[in-house]
Amino acid sequence: MTLVKAYAAQAADQALAPYSFERREPGPDDVEIKILYCGVCHSDIHTARNEWGGTVYPAVPGHEIVGTVTRTGADVTRFKVGQTVGVGCFVDSCMHCSNCEGDLEQYCENGNTQTYNAPSQDKKTITKGGYSSHIVVREHFVLNISDKLPLANVAPLLCAGITTYSPMKHWGVKAGDKVAVVGLGGLGHMAVKLAASFGAEVTMLSRSESKRQDAAELGAKHFVLTTDKDQMATVGRTFNFIIDTVSADHDYNEYLNLLKSDGVMILLGAPAKPIPVSAFPLLMERRSLVGSLVGGLKETQEMLDYCAKHNITSDVEVISMDQINEAYERTLAADVKYRFVIDMSTL
Amino acid sequence: MTLVKAYAAQAADQALAPYSFERREPGPDDVEIKILYCGVCHSDIHTARNEWGGTVYPAVPGHEIVGTVTRTGADVTRFKVGQTVGVGCFVDSCMHCSNCEGDLEQYCENGNTQTYNAPSQDKKTITKGGYSSHIVVREHFVLNISDKLPLANVAPLLCAGITTYSPMKHWGVKAGDKVAVVGLGGLGHMAVKLAASFGAEVTMLSRSESKRQDAAELGAKHFVLTTDKDQMATVGRTFNFIIDTVSADHDYNEYLNLLKSDGVMILLGAPAKPIPVSAFPLLMERRSLVGSLVGGLKETQEMLDYCAKHNITSDVEVISMDQINEAYERTLAADVKYRFVIDMSTL
Repeated sequence: MTLVKAYAAQAADQALAPYSFERREPGPDDVEIKILYCGVCHSDIHTARNEWGGTVYPAVPGHEIVGTVTRTGADVTRFKVGQTVGVGCFVDSCMHCSNCEGDLEQYCENGNTQTYNAPSQDKKTITKGGYSSHIVVREHFVLNISDKLPLANVAPLLCAGITTYSPMKHWGVKAGDKVAVVGLGGLGHMAVKLAASFGAEVTMLSRSESKRQDAAELGAKHFVLTTDKDQMATVGRTFNFIIDTVSADHDYNEYLNLLKSDGVMILLGAPAKPIPVSAFPLLMERRSLVGSLVGGLKETQEMLDYCAKHNITSDVEVISMDQINEAYERTLAADVKYRFVIDMSTL
Repeated sequence: MTLVKAYAAQAADQALAPYSFERREPGPDDVEIKILYCGVCHSDIHTARNEWGGTVYPAVPGHEIVGTVTRTGADVTRFKVGQTVGVGCFVDSCMHCSNCEGDLEQYCENGNTQTYNAPSQDKKTITKGGYSSHIVVREHFVLNISDKLPLANVAPLLCAGITTYSPMKHWGVKAGDKVAVVGLGGLGHMAVKLAASFGAEVTMLSRSESKRQDAAELGAKHFVLTTDKDQMATVGRTFNFIIDTVSADHDYNEYLNLLKSDGVMILLGAPAKPIPVSAFPLLMERRSLVGSLVGGLKETQEMLDYCAKHNITSDVEVISMDQINEAYERTLAADVKYRFVIDMSTL
């Protein structure tokens, strides 16, 4: 066992604070990684504060991990010591169900092991995430990271990047499509960048006029203020896709009516309460309301390679580890453009 | 102009009664049809009673029409006098929008003309439907009907048949898929028959044990009583598709959780009020909640040809025209297996 330094929440109502714990020695299939950067995702906050229930304390969040390989198990073939690698939202799965065999480990039928606060596949331990000096991960769940891009900006691709890339690929966003993005945060800003990179014509839908300039800089050609009924009327039945990244309560039906026939509204945010959906906008134009959760390992590697090739990264604000509690408050206030990333050398 | 006999509602609160009105003389593109049979659809009742608003009285419902060609316009090439033909839910459209050009006239971007209670494309008249002795329809919207099958049983294919066939084809229901059907009425019984004919393994989901035997006879291999939590638990995450034909208020989320990853729940019924949908079942397994409305002309012809080839028709109870008001009450009480069809020779 190796003692690692970390930051953990000791209880739902306590700030994150320094903590140490033991990681397993790398097994034959494992890669040990010294963590360089870890992004700060809304899920981290929900878990630290037990807002989804089921948090096991001490809880060490973090699932947007970039680091350097420090040790490899005897059977590891894809990685060498010194190589730059990434770890995303899950670190293990059953590897034999039809979803795992189909490169959809995110939907493992036997339950995958998320990077933090989840039972390991042997049910013996609860995972601890990337707010730590090192992590030990089964090779299959480790990703190759190009050194071409700034690594702090790459970290959020492991969650925010793949969460937006995967559904756009799955439902076929392509050049010339009209894509609307709802919500300009960690997910939304990646959705705008990626959709624009695919050649789509991107429209930002926002309640706040203050987002207009930022959206344009990220690649949105158009901006619609959703509180303005006249502006909304101009975009009725015009979009092929709507990427909805908002987790707050909002009206799906209003957005569904902005889709063309066969349009697809992709939910990436999960409002706490069910949202009333009228069947009419779905029936009348054969529209789809769908959801998607991160992406499988193969597709995540494809996304990372695509982003390296096209110089796409997240816009981030790098913080030191001891700024994490302040960063949580600012994340909740949407006061970040667009993702906090912890420089783990400050741990 | 030709005087035709019909049955019409004169007001929302009045029973349907004999009525006559003038149809246009067939223009160069038109086909005049003597109506032999007309199915009775829930939409007929909603319209006759102004339950959706906007009914123009006198209202002549009926959009599951089978008949014989009596006259053809000079430019008509596909039909001859004496031929057996059908007319479904709409009788005209703009013919030049991208949906019309893509054989999706049901989603005409300029608004198609429904078979009854809808403005004609020239906005001059309101259409009157199949509870009448004759109808005059633009050639493109007339379908060829095989004489191989009993015509009374074919009539409901023009609405109930295509409404279930089209989404199953669009979303790719195929042999070996597990398909659940919710609701065993006009739409539901066609969904069971068609899905079974595609080689899918069909499960009937019903609140009523009394449907078990009927579902089996229609082709459902399995039956799940939805009020029994234990039975429902056995089918969690098992279906590729759910065809939901229910228009009454019901819980979508419960059904969404019965879908496998990438499963699709197809709404064909339209509950009057929005139904709360939780994003979680969509996100967690990349599921889709979709809707669909009848089908285009090309696909409707394909469906009719498919049904003729595979001996698929609707189970019907043939009534005389003067039984229509009683039939409405029995339709609302779900007291019909599974569609009333009016023998128009009784008019």
